[in-house]
Amino acid sequence: MTASALSMAGMYPPIATPFKVNEDVDYAKLHENMLRWNKMPFRGYVVQGSNGEYTSLSEEERVEVVRRVKADLPDGRIIIAGTSCEGTRQTVQLTKRMAEAGADVALVLPPSYFKASMTGAAMQKHFFSVADASPIPVVLYNMPANTGLDIPVEVCVACADHKNIIGLKDSGGDITRIASIIKQTRGKGFEVLAGSAGFLYPALCCGASGGVCALANIAGEECCEVMSLFSAGKHEESRTLCERLIAANAVVTRKLGVPALKLAMDWRGFYGGPTRAPLLPLTDAQMVLLRADLQSSGLLPQAKL
Amino acid sequence: MTASALSMAGMYPPIATPFKVNEDVDYAKLHENMLRWNKMPFRGYVVQGSNGEYTSLSEEERVEVVRRVKADLPDGRIIIAGTSCEGTRQTVQLTKRMAEAGADVALVLPPSYFKASMTGAAMQKHFFSVADASPIPVVLYNMPANTGLDIPVEVCVACADHKNIIGLKDSGGDITRIASIIKQTRGKGFEVLAGSAGFLYPALCCGASGGVCALANIAGEECCEVMSLFSAGKHEESRTLCERLIAANAVVTRKLGVPALKLAMDWRGFYGGPTRAPLLPLTDAQMVLLRADLQSSGLLPQAKL
Amino acid sequence: MTASALSMAGMYPPIATPFKVNEDVDYAKLHENMLRWNKMPFRGYVVQGSNGEYTSLSEEERVEVVRRVKADLPDGRIIIAGTSCEGTRQTVQLTKRMAEAGADVALVLPPSYFKASMTGAAMQKHFFSVADASPIPVVLYNMPANTGLDIPVEVCVACADHKNIIGLKDSGGDITRIASIIKQTRGKGFEVLAGSAGFLYPALCCGASGGVCALANIAGEECCEVMSLFSAGKHEESRTLCERLIAANAVVTRKLGVPALKLAMDWRGFYGGPTRAPLLPLTDAQMVLLRADLQSSGLLPQAKL
Amino acid sequence: MTASALSMAGMYPPIATPFKVNEDVDYAKLHENMLRWNKMPFRGYVVQGSNGEYTSLSEEERVEVVRRVKADLPDGRIIIAGTSCEGTRQTVQLTKRMAEAGADVALVLPPSYFKASMTGAAMQKHFFSVADASPIPVVLYNMPANTGLDIPVEVCVACADHKNIIGLKDSGGDITRIASIIKQTRGKGFEVLAGSAGFLYPALCCGASGGVCALANIAGEECCEVMSLFSAGKHEESRTLCERLIAANAVVTRKLGVPALKLAMDWRGFYGGPTRAPLLPLTDAQMVLLRADLQSSGLLPQAKL
Repeated sequence: MTASALSMAGMYPPIATPFKVNEDVDYAKLHENMLRWNKMPFRGYVVQGSNGEYTSLSEEERVEVVRRVKADLPDGRIIIAGTSCEGTRQTVQLTKRMAEAGADVALVLPPSYFKASMTGAAMQKHFFSVADASPIPVVLYNMPANTGLDIPVEVCVACADHKNIIGLKDSGGDITRIASIIKQTRGKGFEVLAGSAGFLYPALCCGASGGVCALANIAGEECCEVMSLFSAGKHEESRTLCERLIAANAVVTRKLGVPALKLAMDWRGFYGGPTRAPLLPLTDAQMVLLRADLQSSGLLPQAKL
Repeated sequence: MTASALSMAGMYPPIATPFKVNEDVDYAKLHENMLRWNKMPFRGYVVQGSNGEYTSLSEEERVEVVRRVKADLPDGRIIIAGTSCEGTRQTVQLTKRMAEAGADVALVLPPSYFKASMTGAAMQKHFFSVADASPIPVVLYNMPANTGLDIPVEVCVACADHKNIIGLKDSGGDITRIASIIKQTRGKGFEVLAGSAGFLYPALCCGASGGVCALANIAGEECCEVMSLFSAGKHEESRTLCERLIAANAVVTRKLGVPALKLAMDWRGFYGGPTRAPLLPLTDAQMVLLRADLQSSGLLPQAKL
Repeated sequence: MTASALSMAGMYPPIATPFKVNEDVDYAKLHENMLRWNKMPFRGYVVQGSNGEYTSLSEEERVEVVRRVKADLPDGRIIIAGTSCEGTRQTVQLTKRMAEAGADVALVLPPSYFKASMTGAAMQKHFFSVADASPIPVVLYNMPANTGLDIPVEVCVACADHKNIIGLKDSGGDITRIASIIKQTRGKGFEVLAGSAGFLYPALCCGASGGVCALANIAGEECCEVMSLFSAGKHEESRTLCERLIAANAVVTRKLGVPALKLAMDWRGFYGGPTRAPLLPLTDAQMVLLRADLQSSGLLPQAKL
Repeated sequence: MTASALSMAGMYPPIATPFKVNEDVDYAKLHENMLRWNKMPFRGYVVQGSNGEYTSLSEEERVEVVRRVKADLPDGRIIIAGTSCEGTRQTVQLTKRMAEAGADVALVLPPSYFKASMTGAAMQKHFFSVADASPIPVVLYNMPANTGLDIPVEVCVACADHKNIIGLKDSGGDITRIASIIKQTRGKGFEVLAGSAGFLYPALCCGASGGVCALANIAGEECCEVMSLFSAGKHEESRTLCERLIAANAVVTRKLGVPALKLAMDWRGFYGGPTRAPLLPLTDAQMVLLRADLQSSGLLPQAKL
């Protein structure tokens, strides 16, 4: 599959990695979750994004999870695999392994440990080095809440000219930035994916071609429907649905993060299970907040608890 | 005019305050600018917002500028006057004076000097105190780039229940936040205005009722047209125009600020003139950047310089 | 008094402004506090610093408070008056008025509203303009927690060459920065004052000539003693005392701010009284914390409550 | 060696990892550097700290570098090995491997990718889990410039009660924080090491027992001398020397980072060599700045270039 041939347009859950109580990866539960997600109209899966807790997995585990997802992958769907490491060399090596394991696209964060040194030039060289060496197309991953850095607009635009860099997942939520990148990369085979259900509808309005939404782990149909309503020209309905999902989205991302996403998966009939340390389980008060926000978004019944 | 009777829907330039070379306010030039702006389909004017350099004016000057704008105000237009001070007491006093001077609405920032003390509770009490005492309706003003603070969503929602608080100007650009506030305040007589042309179109998509856009100082027709195209259901055209304006908008706001806005006003046939210190005039390199970005947005001809 | 003739070495409380319950300035209580502070070996007073809630006072009040302190000022002590405004022109005007009212030195923050425009060059021009016009010497005031900005080291060093800029009050607590400025301004008639009791001892070790410490409002003798022990070469004792004060200092500054300082003043036999809005009174839980931290620093008895 | 038996007091260079032009680790050059460092009165070495570019090394390489340093380690010196990973499980595993490879102490950062979830409780659990499982004592590593997080004072104090956590390397430079931690952990077998030469002298004044200073890679004697002068009660000389080193320290840390440190090593007769990507080589302008700052600190001759 060459870069030019691939369209990423569509919805992707950045899937959570299921663990057993002893924190080992639970591949059986992953398989069960996949069977259920496969019934939803996703374009594919993001594997080893932030919600996959990739930073707490060994390299072997990161690759094995992709291999397992590949085994369960329906025809026509794609795997976008997170291959980010702090070093360029490691990222290149892992990207190659991920391609062998079945990934169709590599998702790459900017290195962020040496923050003061991560100028636009340093980021661009990193992305180009990975893209030059990668057997599969590369998508940039902007995640300022976790990295403390924004990939400069200019770097995104420059990367769009690299034939093996085909897009950007932007989780920052700065819609002006997203619209600006879309405008400046139009016609270059570069797609922008909204990194959160919270701004999926306005991102689509601005020309995004899809979304990678944590919320799709627990509300896949709803996330897909925001897109299909939009595609059908039903702005009002798309907007209303997206707006309804904001509270649920916020609570499993910004407010409480992966532990909340996993508990919500349990509540919604998936296997969520525990996170790996250093992430902590929710407190009782956090569980109450989670339930209330899922209810207000219509993802849990309002009935008495 | 009561809060419930007033609709703010529409476009507003947050007008620049013209100064002479000696930094005195140039009321004659203000009048000339007003005559020209009055020909554009604005809903009204924001006077003494950030672009009015209100922080560099004396209290007398702040009030006098409003008085002069009032004198030039066409029927049916409104004045939204910035009445922000750090102290609650001062803000109340200035709000009353602004109302006497002709302001229809008061625009109020959260105090920001004692950042660590500006909890949601402290902000809400400030806004309520001002709204309780104000003879005119109050609009909240969220401007994190200048204040270093975001008004919490919960505070905005709580303020929407105050009968004399009728809206929010949000200049932060976090579209999820904007959509969330719109959803949670629907039906409460609370309007959200996009604080920048950069995200005017997506904000309208999410239910904003207008915009307060620095760019409208120099591109009023274009800013109004983004809105009228949207109102006519012409999403594609509205989006394309808004997208075209992003570069010009960014250069007169985030990138170079008020000195660039004023020079662009000079270039576009208004009186911009100097800023007051501590703002510095643009360097030559900054002027080149300004020109290029205005050209790329179609606000200056591309011809050779 | 010329800049070269003035030595600022010593301890200063940045005095709180007393208010009545109706938030009017309580000049009688100010007088009473002054009588008590005058018995302590201070070098002088900082009037209208952050702890004076200057941002919530009118210009008239700011000047009048200085006038009243002057009336109570013992021979040989000096007044360092905060004259900061956002605009250069206003700062110049207020500085002149403060000089007439009895201020010996003006304390000037960098403007901070237009954060993105407050480059080193803009700050330096502001400080030079004020110093050029001021009848009294100027001290720079670095307060990043409130302004969101650090005055660059290079700007401090350049200002030291201005004959009417005689020092810096640094409240940031970056000791490397303080030591670096002291080194680069040595021999230029430029003094550095520690802006917090928390790092008073290490700042003295690095060559600071005194301190402006919120804590001196309630623990003046102790703050002065840190300095006198240091001057006597008693490092161990000076360090131990300073260390003991950290908890009390933190709770009346970083942790809880002016409302805590004022309540602690009440508890320590001064008049603290209410703050002006937007600052809120302490909650019960905050009061408990305040008491505990004052006790752990030996400023309140440990006895049962 | 048990935690209680070990004193870490002294100076440590956080050694750079030498690479060949092809970015492979150059163990021969590491050996050469070690021979030279071994002649200086260091207490030991920090291996795989930030300056060791540990984030760009594979796990195998991280362990092998420790093994090689161990082979060159003189009697009486210790190795403090960075064992930080994002996940708790991986950190435990690597800590065990590092102990086997010869590390005497493990240096552990707080996980920082899931910033919003890294509460004090989450950090403390991580540190306790590592310390419980580690065969060697653990030192906390506070490095806010790279992680975007500060380990809360309360967490440091709580960790001091764990029998296998023996200290803190603090690179943040907030001297009040350092003094506060020292006060609250006194008598608990907990040592604080200054994480930068820039504030080494004031940290010693406040009770730090040593330093881990990037600058010691190129100015080991000078860094050791700051300590020995201090121990001899020569405050003035210690301060003056430390102050002289600030410019050199800043340029190889905050200003330009590891690429500058490595070039300075080349200039000072060590092997510095290239960094691994994503770190970029210095530009010409940066080299000029580096040279000037080393000269002003007396680490390069002032003669014409």
